[in-house]
Amino acid sequence: MVKHFLSLASFTQHELMDLVEKAQSFSHLLQTPEKIPPLLQHKIIANVFYEPSTRTRCSFEVAAKRLGGEVINFNPENSSVKKGETVYDTLKTLESLGVESLVFRHSDDHILEDLKSAFHLPLINAGAGKHEHPTQGLLDLLTLYQEFGKLQGLKVAVCGDIKHSRVAGSLMVAAKIFGIKIYLCGPDSLRPLSTDSMIEAADFDSTLPEVDAVMMLRIQIERHEGLELDAKTYHHQFGMNQRRQKMMQPHAIIMHPGPFNRGLEISDDMVEHPQSRIFKQMHNGVAARMAILDWAINRKGL
Amino acid sequence: MVKHFLSLASFTQHELMDLVEKAQSFSHLLQTPEKIPPLLQHKIIANVFYEPSTRTRCSFEVAAKRLGGEVINFNPENSSVKKGETVYDTLKTLESLGVESLVFRHSDDHILEDLKSAFHLPLINAGAGKHEHPTQGLLDLLTLYQEFGKLQGLKVAVCGDIKHSRVAGSLMVAAKIFGIKIYLCGPDSLRPLSTDSMIEAADFDSTLPEVDAVMMLRIQIERHEGLELDAKTYHHQFGMNQRRQKMMQPHAIIMHPGPFNRGLEISDDMVEHPQSRIFKQMHNGVAARMAILDWAINRKGL
Amino acid sequence: MVKHFLSLASFTQHELMDLVEKAQSFSHLLQTPEKIPPLLQHKIIANVFYEPSTRTRCSFEVAAKRLGGEVINFNPENSSVKKGETVYDTLKTLESLGVESLVFRHSDDHILEDLKSAFHLPLINAGAGKHEHPTQGLLDLLTLYQEFGKLQGLKVAVCGDIKHSRVAGSLMVAAKIFGIKIYLCGPDSLRPLSTDSMIEAADFDSTLPEVDAVMMLRIQIERHEGLELDAKTYHHQFGMNQRRQKMMQPHAIIMHPGPFNRGLEISDDMVEHPQSRIFKQMHNGVAARMAILDWAINRKGL
Repeated sequence: MVKHFLSLASFTQHELMDLVEKAQSFSHLLQTPEKIPPLLQHKIIANVFYEPSTRTRCSFEVAAKRLGGEVINFNPENSSVKKGETVYDTLKTLESLGVESLVFRHSDDHILEDLKSAFHLPLINAGAGKHEHPTQGLLDLLTLYQEFGKLQGLKVAVCGDIKHSRVAGSLMVAAKIFGIKIYLCGPDSLRPLSTDSMIEAADFDSTLPEVDAVMMLRIQIERHEGLELDAKTYHHQFGMNQRRQKMMQPHAIIMHPGPFNRGLEISDDMVEHPQSRIFKQMHNGVAARMAILDWAINRKGL
Repeated sequence: MVKHFLSLASFTQHELMDLVEKAQSFSHLLQTPEKIPPLLQHKIIANVFYEPSTRTRCSFEVAAKRLGGEVINFNPENSSVKKGETVYDTLKTLESLGVESLVFRHSDDHILEDLKSAFHLPLINAGAGKHEHPTQGLLDLLTLYQEFGKLQGLKVAVCGDIKHSRVAGSLMVAAKIFGIKIYLCGPDSLRPLSTDSMIEAADFDSTLPEVDAVMMLRIQIERHEGLELDAKTYHHQFGMNQRRQKMMQPHAIIMHPGPFNRGLEISDDMVEHPQSRIFKQMHNGVAARMAILDWAINRKGL
Repeated sequence: MVKHFLSLASFTQHELMDLVEKAQSFSHLLQTPEKIPPLLQHKIIANVFYEPSTRTRCSFEVAAKRLGGEVINFNPENSSVKKGETVYDTLKTLESLGVESLVFRHSDDHILEDLKSAFHLPLINAGAGKHEHPTQGLLDLLTLYQEFGKLQGLKVAVCGDIKHSRVAGSLMVAAKIFGIKIYLCGPDSLRPLSTDSMIEAADFDSTLPEVDAVMMLRIQIERHEGLELDAKTYHHQFGMNQRRQKMMQPHAIIMHPGPFNRGLEISDDMVEHPQSRIFKQMHNGVAARMAILDWAINRKGL
């Protein structure tokens, strides 16, 4: 049966832990790229991004190449999409070309659910809609696991535009699976309601001394034009900066999925602060996506 | 001597049949990609597309990679074309870089004829001008050959904007070479005059019960803005739909080079109808282009 | 220590000669690509071009692939740059992905100097700012060396928009290192002042009979809109054409970094004249970039 990777919610705790550990193995192997087994040799991945992306698209490309695979970048801007071709027909065309997996990003919230039963190759959700970004979710779990040696019982504050964040969406799914406590911080208008006991609203500053990690989210300035967002006020109320970092426990880490707005949700000096794992997360993205590609494409992988 | 692939008209029936059979062999090999001989190892193909393309560009990229080759995608949008560089100078630059073949698409009808004698590496016509699209022609022949075990004596109806279709152009060239009977259907204003006995105008509905295949062509809406094209009327008069499919013989197949306009020249339910070979054609495009690349680049190939 | 390739000025004559000779070896190896040692196997290069480019970007891509390496093309147009990400953060992201080198082009004159100490992988200047284009510089040196078997004592006239040319910038740096005499020709307003005895202003026509090479520079029409540049007048005063070619010594060569404006700084018939090395320069660009990649990435290379 074809193994789509659409949502973390389709995994049991055990299965997801297997993926985290597989990703951890790949992160070790990445220290000596020439020794990585060519698990994707003779496999071709198609990157199909209908929305812009730096780290996710390049991360998948590096992941595939580190495993000996090939990558085709399909850019809707230079394609028949300009002639009015539907997403279904474009993806079906790429499937017909015989590629082994489609890595897919789109703005539509439900498109992958609508499409999945029609495809006989693994579809990988690289950020479709605003609900989930499960490959980011896996790299965030890997980052926490590397830091704390476990996931159960961790406490994570999330702060920013949670309502529109697919990154937060996948973290909350994972939180329920693993029993991670999530504190939703930031402006009320950007916080979703939660009915789950593991996920609750909290005051940012009061929460900081309690948590193992703080995940800052990008304020998507382009979506808040009417909001008259005042960067200085926002940063004062909800930004990560030296004052807040000092309120955190010494072992606690700062995370951000990127791209970040320096001076808005995070101050310049926090991006590469010793407690920050922001660029480590990007590094871990390659290992996480290697694990996902291997899981989706190979019967017998690492 | 350098082997350009510019037009099917430069092949004898015997030579073209060799290419069809080579493509057929590759289509078998594609079932187990890891067993395909790396006939393009150490070879670099440059995709040079001055017009948008999904299936042709990606198809060449998959074809080259399946044969162990490398591909460079040259995008005029991000290049010195913006600084006013001529097509000749851009192609000559890519030749100077030492790539083994240029796969070329452009809107100009005569550009490849003008350029060919100046280049010492194989130029491959991936849709230059509106006269021919010979790599599509080869995949169409492969699709017919797989279905019927022969090409001679087949009857094919073509319906749509034949006059502006380079796909139909190459099919008509192949028809003369192999003795395939072509019926030109669709609106008078979109049909070319033919002086060849194998190619004649015909009424669409009367022709349907006679033919082995119906090739529907995309109505290029963007080129008919002034025409006040009424989609419903067009579909009623010339579209493929259940009513017309039932008029076809049970063994006859529906073809379309893509991208298609669902509901215009073909109804939704016909695209993946059991008699449709539309996505099979796209699949065959990879095998056809593997055969063409091998033919053009290697002295000794498959 | 990380080996950035930012400016020819950081090399001694001996070191730079080593690079020229390494490039010369690669130019021989390129005649039989299948015999080139895979010195970049398991290495991934990222092309990061903030300005358009044909030959430099493709040249690096061919160079990396000929050495068995992989290439990722990062296009700011389809990326988080659209979300306001800084150049530093974008490059740091690509470094975090674990690629082995960043090949970088940008309009800012000082950006690489500002960035270099923060990066732990080799940065390669593929045309950053208007001061230097050192990989072009190396290929120009290779072209002169192939022609004359030496660099010391050569005389080269440069004509055109020298002031805004990073190509001329790198040539002048190399001239000082090797003792090449440079004559600055063309309009006064486009000539920089020189205080170096090896670099002096000269009348174009009087200089032609003296020199071993004439390097024509592209008139960047797009930067001279207000200048009311009259192409015919410019070509008469400063263009390379048959009249001027006849004034050159028989052994002297015509160079141009491309893209060129036919009929402006160079007449049609001079581009592929027997004394022209313009397309040879492009060919040499691959060998030069192979040498640079090998130098920057491998401890033990060719």
